[in-house]
Amino acid sequence: MSYQIPTEQWAQVVETTGKPPVYKKIPVGKPGLDEVLINIKYSGVCHTDLHAMMGDWPLEVKLPLVGGHEGAGIVVARGDLVKDVEIGEHVGIKWINESCLACSFCRQMDEPLCPRAKISGYTVDGTFQQYAVANARNVAHIPKDVSLKAVAPVLCAGITVYKGLKESGARAGQTVAVVGAGGGLGNMAIQYAKAMGIQVIAIDAGEDKRKGTLALGAMSFIDFSTSKDVVADVKAASPDGEGPDAVLLLAVQEKPFQQASEYVRPRGTVVCIGMPANAYLKASIFHTVTRMICIRGSYVGNRQDTAEAIDFFARGLIKAPYKVAALSELPKIYELMHANEIVGRYVVDTSK
Amino acid sequence: MSYQIPTEQWAQVVETTGKPPVYKKIPVGKPGLDEVLINIKYSGVCHTDLHAMMGDWPLEVKLPLVGGHEGAGIVVARGDLVKDVEIGEHVGIKWINESCLACSFCRQMDEPLCPRAKISGYTVDGTFQQYAVANARNVAHIPKDVSLKAVAPVLCAGITVYKGLKESGARAGQTVAVVGAGGGLGNMAIQYAKAMGIQVIAIDAGEDKRKGTLALGAMSFIDFSTSKDVVADVKAASPDGEGPDAVLLLAVQEKPFQQASEYVRPRGTVVCIGMPANAYLKASIFHTVTRMICIRGSYVGNRQDTAEAIDFFARGLIKAPYKVAALSELPKIYELMHANEIVGRYVVDTSK
Amino acid sequence: MSYQIPTEQWAQVVETTGKPPVYKKIPVGKPGLDEVLINIKYSGVCHTDLHAMMGDWPLEVKLPLVGGHEGAGIVVARGDLVKDVEIGEHVGIKWINESCLACSFCRQMDEPLCPRAKISGYTVDGTFQQYAVANARNVAHIPKDVSLKAVAPVLCAGITVYKGLKESGARAGQTVAVVGAGGGLGNMAIQYAKAMGIQVIAIDAGEDKRKGTLALGAMSFIDFSTSKDVVADVKAASPDGEGPDAVLLLAVQEKPFQQASEYVRPRGTVVCIGMPANAYLKASIFHTVTRMICIRGSYVGNRQDTAEAIDFFARGLIKAPYKVAALSELPKIYELMHANEIVGRYVVDTSK
Amino acid sequence: MSYQIPTEQWAQVVETTGKPPVYKKIPVGKPGLDEVLINIKYSGVCHTDLHAMMGDWPLEVKLPLVGGHEGAGIVVARGDLVKDVEIGEHVGIKWINESCLACSFCRQMDEPLCPRAKISGYTVDGTFQQYAVANARNVAHIPKDVSLKAVAPVLCAGITVYKGLKESGARAGQTVAVVGAGGGLGNMAIQYAKAMGIQVIAIDAGEDKRKGTLALGAMSFIDFSTSKDVVADVKAASPDGEGPDAVLLLAVQEKPFQQASEYVRPRGTVVCIGMPANAYLKASIFHTVTRMICIRGSYVGNRQDTAEAIDFFARGLIKAPYKVAALSELPKIYELMHANEIVGRYVVDTSK
Repeated sequence: MSYQIPTEQWAQVVETTGKPPVYKKIPVGKPGLDEVLINIKYSGVCHTDLHAMMGDWPLEVKLPLVGGHEGAGIVVARGDLVKDVEIGEHVGIKWINESCLACSFCRQMDEPLCPRAKISGYTVDGTFQQYAVANARNVAHIPKDVSLKAVAPVLCAGITVYKGLKESGARAGQTVAVVGAGGGLGNMAIQYAKAMGIQVIAIDAGEDKRKGTLALGAMSFIDFSTSKDVVADVKAASPDGEGPDAVLLLAVQEKPFQQASEYVRPRGTVVCIGMPANAYLKASIFHTVTRMICIRGSYVGNRQDTAEAIDFFARGLIKAPYKVAALSELPKIYELMHANEIVGRYVVDTSK
Repeated sequence: MSYQIPTEQWAQVVETTGKPPVYKKIPVGKPGLDEVLINIKYSGVCHTDLHAMMGDWPLEVKLPLVGGHEGAGIVVARGDLVKDVEIGEHVGIKWINESCLACSFCRQMDEPLCPRAKISGYTVDGTFQQYAVANARNVAHIPKDVSLKAVAPVLCAGITVYKGLKESGARAGQTVAVVGAGGGLGNMAIQYAKAMGIQVIAIDAGEDKRKGTLALGAMSFIDFSTSKDVVADVKAASPDGEGPDAVLLLAVQEKPFQQASEYVRPRGTVVCIGMPANAYLKASIFHTVTRMICIRGSYVGNRQDTAEAIDFFARGLIKAPYKVAALSELPKIYELMHANEIVGRYVVDTSK
Repeated sequence: MSYQIPTEQWAQVVETTGKPPVYKKIPVGKPGLDEVLINIKYSGVCHTDLHAMMGDWPLEVKLPLVGGHEGAGIVVARGDLVKDVEIGEHVGIKWINESCLACSFCRQMDEPLCPRAKISGYTVDGTFQQYAVANARNVAHIPKDVSLKAVAPVLCAGITVYKGLKESGARAGQTVAVVGAGGGLGNMAIQYAKAMGIQVIAIDAGEDKRKGTLALGAMSFIDFSTSKDVVADVKAASPDGEGPDAVLLLAVQEKPFQQASEYVRPRGTVVCIGMPANAYLKASIFHTVTRMICIRGSYVGNRQDTAEAIDFFARGLIKAPYKVAALSELPKIYELMHANEIVGRYVVDTSK
Repeated sequence: MSYQIPTEQWAQVVETTGKPPVYKKIPVGKPGLDEVLINIKYSGVCHTDLHAMMGDWPLEVKLPLVGGHEGAGIVVARGDLVKDVEIGEHVGIKWINESCLACSFCRQMDEPLCPRAKISGYTVDGTFQQYAVANARNVAHIPKDVSLKAVAPVLCAGITVYKGLKESGARAGQTVAVVGAGGGLGNMAIQYAKAMGIQVIAIDAGEDKRKGTLALGAMSFIDFSTSKDVVADVKAASPDGEGPDAVLLLAVQEKPFQQASEYVRPRGTVVCIGMPANAYLKASIFHTVTRMICIRGSYVGNRQDTAEAIDFFARGLIKAPYKVAALSELPKIYELMHANEIVGRYVVDTSK
């Protein structure tokens, strides 16, 4: 199989951090010897892309920058050393665009911790363009019968919550509280948990979120905006009243981080995923010790987590609602995001 | 074998929290059906005993109280249901005096988390008396050729640091930083680590502590009182500069808790053991997540940890320096402790 | 609450091994200080009961013997030391009637390996009687809204396959082959696996078993009686053709044990549960080493496994078909069993 | 740094399986884009090399073949894509010469199971030549202060036994029986175990082996040639008489494989490493199940195991006795090996 590859393409380019990206034509990249060139069809828009555009995280961004790290498309060219990816294959570009595969982190399956990792849409150009380059050993493999549109948000949001659930150590039959269960990540977390045999206590605010999370399979719902004692209510919602075996923190406020260590079951694990800017974990040392609590950060998934997260999706167990917009409309999506007015996830169509 | 059991005995009794214990004669207890009566020969004096006397921890103490939870002695009587402990056997009483052995925590080897646990020298009378009662299934078994004097401090300090090392997940060949390495717990931690094939970066202050910790087998020493950048220095002391695989926090100040999450290796574990009063863990959420740090509390060991910790000691791998004093002198030891003037551990001889 | 306890009761008593049990009146036992007396309502009949009656296993049986180890009923009396079990509570008696809770196996959650374990219906009297005695800390707790009739087979068959799945190390999303999937244990294994998010390749013989196992949720079925190459067919049925991540051997023939090590995925685990008499595991050393296969035996569950297995059942995730017969009819059930003519599981009603 | 690279070199070439290798000049290879060229200084001679030469394993060999897979030397050239290996660096070539680093096995740290793995001295040319090519991401990194001569045998024998100890799951303080403890692998196993805090029961035959293994730090020695009951003796040698927590099978006879499953502690692990030709594991199913035994194959280590095994060696904890011979003398070494007359390990010097 071979593809016609243009020399120019449309892209959204951040030229100055803090300013909206510019929609314009730029040259199509060339894959290195161990890289592939991917015709991106759809790309999810993640809150992190907004951080990259704003440049407000303690991690420097490339400039000018093509953002995006949830891109799904078709391999149209590959370097001479590439053996594991075929031309015509459906693949995804995720947060980790390349890792060295030789350092002590890579050797132990922690590619996201590789000091030489390149990050899509952050330290290298990402997926808000029609043709993107990625390291062949790091692309996500997508079965042909899976919708590229639908799978795009799984490439970051899905993998991240799935990884968080694995890191929580929760086993089938146990209970996990999901803080921020009504959001995009939260909705996926509920579904992954269910597919893993784990019971979910959904925590969020409002009647819509209650209905939504229960409909997705949550065992119970705690409304933190109306609860008089969130800690007591979460404990009471756990099967034996001792608290959930683990907590997934998807929130972007600081307060839930402190409550979680109080309501999690003794010997339980609090998994931090959401990253409120400049925020701190805080927990009583006395109670952390005597209750033997574990608090751990979970970053994005590695390549194996990616394969597994996509497999759950491919088997129809995860529904991630999304709206399709044109790539040209990206600045408008950022505006909505900034104003906190987005419900569900946007996926941009790079052909428009 | 049978023993003469007196009806009265000498004990140190806390009659009012905040006041020194009173040395006086009290009746000898009787073991229940699943309990043993132990002629305590020696009992270690732990900082926790001071907290019990002061009543300054968020956990209510029994009153009047016989403190002490590091007692080693000889079984002189047992209840009718006891099968696993023989009269004449050498045993130890530790922090957990009794656990229900049936709740979900006990069923999963976490006896210290049992909601019905009875705590020696805190919620039930402990080992600062000549005859103490304990649940037979919870006593520590001590081989006959082990010195009762020398093993006493292992029953709390030794088990606690050994448990912390297990909870750290550090494997043989890896590196653990021990904060407070020059103290009593720290000295034991270095030796247990060494016996487990783990390399130690000792952290403490002063030339004496440097010499002492290196003599015990620490790989390197960081003096936090003179270091210009503790975080950088600890990282540099780790074999590949990425930081130690784990950290054991034995300190009773808050600051080291925050530094530890910065210098621990990505994917590493910070184990909290020391409990500074009213102190809080604090860590940047961004770095906890992106470095995938784990922060966990480790309380006292369970029965299996106890057996293992004693076995290391019995094989001669752990030397815990101690001074012997008379039980009658306990108030004076508390005074020294309160004034922070103790070097090494005191063991009281209950016969004096 | 208090119950009228008769002095005599009906029981099935094996007086000579190899001969059918005798249905007759015997005295009602008295619970010891840490025991409970249970009014058994229903008791499942397991293949092991037949072995006990025949005395053909390399483990000596008590004589005369009341068999049975899947009994569900109501606590009617308890010894003075019992705190965790209430009069009136619904509980089950399982294979392990009592364990010492103090040896190195008990301390590490392996009560079934306790050298002092008492075995229901084998080394102590079991559940084929109206009133049975059991150690309070070892009874299974059954929620009040669960049918005692229906839960009886879970107390051995359910726990055993659930334990086997845990021992297999298979995670949600992975694949397990179940050999003997069409039998009673196999049917439960399929359902437990599904509830744990695990995919099942069912292996058995005949069209009925195909339909039955697929209806219960198996992903695919291999008929070993018609397959020309079982090893190749099982591998082909796994998602990537490398073989299932684990195998559960419920069969009572020797051959499947040897095939399993050939079709299991490299690094996979073969779990032996079924115990064909005088049979041996056999596997090529070269392939075991170079494929890094793990072969492990899984016995009955411990107390925590028991609680978990019952919880899955109580949440309605496991349906175990059974037929109810009178306790008086037990010899007839053994005859059918001996002739291999049983489909599904029998539960005897002790009131008849 | 740059090196003069000749076009021709001396090598030992197997031209026909079953016949001794021919010492002759052959061209020096060129590294591919992700490969390095290594000036091999020393290469250990392993029993496996004899199997490769004989072609008697169920795995086809390349022909003509340069054998050898324990080669230590200096990187003299590298492909353009290589970033993690420097010219002038000391590295080792081990059994796994290349793995794809992208398949499900490589993604999960099991490079030795990679279906595309290339095997040094078996499916690609190995280290019995002066200049050998290897995949850059798979070479072993050797600190500059480590003797290349002495480290050579670690590259296969050392890694293999270290991996086996890791796979055994034995923790510091536990006991491992090493079958074949007196041989080259066995001697290393004793030392690695000791460095990991594990106690060793050495099993072998003869007074020399007794002395040798005890001198290396074994806790006890069982002579299988004079023992009247090996199973009973090994159990008795374990601290509590229940048997060792794990067994390492380095033997190349079938019988010890069957004994091991009998004397290993309940819940213990038997690790198979040695590969007697055409041999089978055999174990009673009844005892495997009721004692919950685990039998697992351990192949060579992955890259992380390699780094760890070398680190223990570099820290001076492992002494592997060896004799140096000229590369030209390789056929004579094979003869001795074939006749079972080798004590210790041979290392060939490629400059002679």
